[in-house]
Amino acid sequence: MSDITYKLASRASKPEGSVVKVKGLEIGAKKVVVMAGPCAVESEQQLMQAAKAVKEAGATVLRSSAYKPRSSPYSFQGLGKEGLNLIKKAGQEFGLVTETEVVDTRDVSTVSEYVDILRIGARNMQNFALLKEAGKAGKPVILKNGISATLEEFLLAAEYLLSEGNTDVILCYRGVKGFEPRVRFPLDTGSIPLLKELTHLPVIVDPSHSTGKQSLVGPVSKAAIAAGADGLMVEVHPNPGQAKSDKEQQLLPGQFSELMKQLSPVAKAVGREL
Amino acid sequence: MSDITYKLASRASKPEGSVVKVKGLEIGAKKVVVMAGPCAVESEQQLMQAAKAVKEAGATVLRSSAYKPRSSPYSFQGLGKEGLNLIKKAGQEFGLVTETEVVDTRDVSTVSEYVDILRIGARNMQNFALLKEAGKAGKPVILKNGISATLEEFLLAAEYLLSEGNTDVILCYRGVKGFEPRVRFPLDTGSIPLLKELTHLPVIVDPSHSTGKQSLVGPVSKAAIAAGADGLMVEVHPNPGQAKSDKEQQLLPGQFSELMKQLSPVAKAVGREL
Amino acid sequence: MSDITYKLASRASKPEGSVVKVKGLEIGAKKVVVMAGPCAVESEQQLMQAAKAVKEAGATVLRSSAYKPRSSPYSFQGLGKEGLNLIKKAGQEFGLVTETEVVDTRDVSTVSEYVDILRIGARNMQNFALLKEAGKAGKPVILKNGISATLEEFLLAAEYLLSEGNTDVILCYRGVKGFEPRVRFPLDTGSIPLLKELTHLPVIVDPSHSTGKQSLVGPVSKAAIAAGADGLMVEVHPNPGQAKSDKEQQLLPGQFSELMKQLSPVAKAVGREL
Amino acid sequence: MSDITYKLASRASKPEGSVVKVKGLEIGAKKVVVMAGPCAVESEQQLMQAAKAVKEAGATVLRSSAYKPRSSPYSFQGLGKEGLNLIKKAGQEFGLVTETEVVDTRDVSTVSEYVDILRIGARNMQNFALLKEAGKAGKPVILKNGISATLEEFLLAAEYLLSEGNTDVILCYRGVKGFEPRVRFPLDTGSIPLLKELTHLPVIVDPSHSTGKQSLVGPVSKAAIAAGADGLMVEVHPNPGQAKSDKEQQLLPGQFSELMKQLSPVAKAVGREL
Repeated sequence: MSDITYKLASRASKPEGSVVKVKGLEIGAKKVVVMAGPCAVESEQQLMQAAKAVKEAGATVLRSSAYKPRSSPYSFQGLGKEGLNLIKKAGQEFGLVTETEVVDTRDVSTVSEYVDILRIGARNMQNFALLKEAGKAGKPVILKNGISATLEEFLLAAEYLLSEGNTDVILCYRGVKGFEPRVRFPLDTGSIPLLKELTHLPVIVDPSHSTGKQSLVGPVSKAAIAAGADGLMVEVHPNPGQAKSDKEQQLLPGQFSELMKQLSPVAKAVGREL
Repeated sequence: MSDITYKLASRASKPEGSVVKVKGLEIGAKKVVVMAGPCAVESEQQLMQAAKAVKEAGATVLRSSAYKPRSSPYSFQGLGKEGLNLIKKAGQEFGLVTETEVVDTRDVSTVSEYVDILRIGARNMQNFALLKEAGKAGKPVILKNGISATLEEFLLAAEYLLSEGNTDVILCYRGVKGFEPRVRFPLDTGSIPLLKELTHLPVIVDPSHSTGKQSLVGPVSKAAIAAGADGLMVEVHPNPGQAKSDKEQQLLPGQFSELMKQLSPVAKAVGREL
Repeated sequence: MSDITYKLASRASKPEGSVVKVKGLEIGAKKVVVMAGPCAVESEQQLMQAAKAVKEAGATVLRSSAYKPRSSPYSFQGLGKEGLNLIKKAGQEFGLVTETEVVDTRDVSTVSEYVDILRIGARNMQNFALLKEAGKAGKPVILKNGISATLEEFLLAAEYLLSEGNTDVILCYRGVKGFEPRVRFPLDTGSIPLLKELTHLPVIVDPSHSTGKQSLVGPVSKAAIAAGADGLMVEVHPNPGQAKSDKEQQLLPGQFSELMKQLSPVAKAVGREL
Repeated sequence: MSDITYKLASRASKPEGSVVKVKGLEIGAKKVVVMAGPCAVESEQQLMQAAKAVKEAGATVLRSSAYKPRSSPYSFQGLGKEGLNLIKKAGQEFGLVTETEVVDTRDVSTVSEYVDILRIGARNMQNFALLKEAGKAGKPVILKNGISATLEEFLLAAEYLLSEGNTDVILCYRGVKGFEPRVRFPLDTGSIPLLKELTHLPVIVDPSHSTGKQSLVGPVSKAAIAAGADGLMVEVHPNPGQAKSDKEQQLLPGQFSELMKQLSPVAKAVGREL
């Protein structure tokens, strides 16, 4: 497990740390970046409401998925290209940086035309064909860890992106597989500072997919910042009870706005800003 | 977790069990099918030696990979199309059914021209775009379980193939993620008969990737058959010490031939044949 | 992880393997030993019925617990000393070797007066005070692996028994913690031959606690023997539906009898006897 | 998994939360309690140096073990009764509340004479005989979660203590078994607020055993407080490199003192004090 296996991603290759810049936004700098929005784009109204709410609360990036990888072929698979259009529109209307998931090598160039940041999800962390394609797309990429990937494998997946010449890679730690029935994906607290030791890449944390439970998103968000995360990716939905996926974990706009207020003093307590 | 989630794959939908037929070979019938060959195609000489050895020992399917998904971008990635050519040649020369892994949606049609059976590996079990494409290819597909997939998720991945109209799906159980440092991927013995209860699809077992150790491949192969597996997928290499991947687990031709002799009485003891 | 850490248990210290002898029975020799009986002693009638049934089917050791370690303080905790009396009586009446679990250092000497073999359960595998006491009791000990113990830790726990001068130690592999919701404790097939490589101690397998499901006990029992196990520990109850613990996994006498017939050819297929 | 299974421990049975009082110290109140000290008592000088250092830095409880449960019978097993004497002396000399681990039912009454709080370690979380004995000892008990215990099992173990009439139970969450080779025991961030929802008992966190690495203890300590922990248990040793156990994770006195200063603003940011 020598660091040499992920030489471009290793902290040693850039001891001062990387800052990814997108439309004036800096990810990996002093300011903690909050990405927020619905799990999936479901309709224009839903996305616009969510975008408005997260913008007003202080988020700078709109998160939402147009392509949904689902365990079952019979579950809602996302709005596809129609969703991309809505994401672009919401980003423009509310002055938000946009990101969305890409799931197929053949979609990379299209998706890149619509959003500011590509996201590669946990299930595709070792879809190496997709990593290579995304590495060539000329867009920043958020890479989520596979649910049973080691940190070494996570960094090697980032290395696939970096070795294609893409230096704008953001790691998103979203917890791993565990055995506790009450927690979707246990989020090891120590892995946050450990990632920061191992790599120069910015590290953000997804408290929503990890906990799977509204009431835990707040405490975990605070903990992530206290542990050194460079940002958060939080699911916010205007009406979580009606969501087509992840009902239990999406925050209401009011809950998100309240959370943002609570995060600010935590960020300050560890020398950061929100 | 009701069976309804994977209705086409469920045992209820075909209580008598499925038999996949390829070039006269039946997978899922009384005869236990042994697929064997090198982890990766490395050269013509290597593949031909391996093919000859496994044919002589009684295997009916040649396993080998031309495209290798590797954790590191700097590891051997396979011979690609040149490898496909060699697999086709070896199959013809030794009268073996052939199979190989497909890793990119864009390669599915090409790979389908060269081999008899497509394989989708553990890392791509939830690469849904790839599943959909493979489901339309008109070829039987071997689907390996993801290393942290539940059996439900495994069967739902099979459902993606089946719901595209492909009824020739073979499940390959290759063990899962565990915490024992001496075992690569613990292979739960009970999951073999459990899969046979849950689904009508043939279930084969990969003792090589599970154990990661030559000396354990034999006992685990016997156990798999005793537990009801319909077949095995075993790595055999003319010179494992020189292999470009999986050195520790590939059997020598002589070891494989000896194993085949030992498997025969075990198959009979549980009412099967080899 | 050098073998030196469990020097008395290591295969190197006794390459020919150990045979534990109890009242004429040999555990670890050519003959596969089957231990069977109810999870817990519940009443005289229940135990006598179970003992009669397992004896007639060919088991040589009566398994049953008088002290039940239970996750909840409100669950049935076993009959205690009354249970010990019944076990002794059943052993004498049916000519069976007896074993039972011991859970408290203060009970070791009493329990040793009533049964032929002590058992230390999974939850107590690292109860070192209990191991030391059991190591001095002058009785053979069956040691079950902790559900999250590595094989190294398992062998080190055996080393506690051995280093107190007790050479009659039998390892019982009962599966480990996993993430599959349909399987209680995944039983890694490869760990059976691996244990046989690492240690000279006899290795038996518990298919009942691992699978947690009646219909899987048979296939897993066959697989365990095929993989090289020296014996089995199987739960059998005259009326599983009424059992005070482990209802789902205990076999009916008729099922057990049928299983014993099926195991015999499997044992022969791998050069053993039943 | 209804709450009814751990009715005395459940939040519903005491919605306002429990405060455990020991010699004027309150655990579970507004003030975050820091317990610190060496993994094991090794000598008078070592313990006194550690006690002095943690007192000066602001800790209120001295942690240290006189009885060490060790995986190998050949590892340092602790100083035993001599260690208890030293702990008592250190507590008196520096005005610290004391705690130590108890590992044998037969030692409970003796240990209770020497220290203010009993500790039951992860390996003994389901040593029910020990739980029952500790529940009767008339002393507060710190209960650590077993490394593969679910939260339900953890609370049921606490229920054993509570159902013996002991209401002064403190839960210590120390992480669980995981598969990441770089982290000893992944500490799920969400489990901290989740425990606080499920139970009224105070919850403290052990960042030392979880991370296993000095440099991660600080960030994880901050995160634990941010997530709502009522206290911390931190290993501090005057000379970690010479420690007889857990060398890699014990903080130097200077590191601990620095950490205490950094924790204070984090506690304030979430409405607590240090």
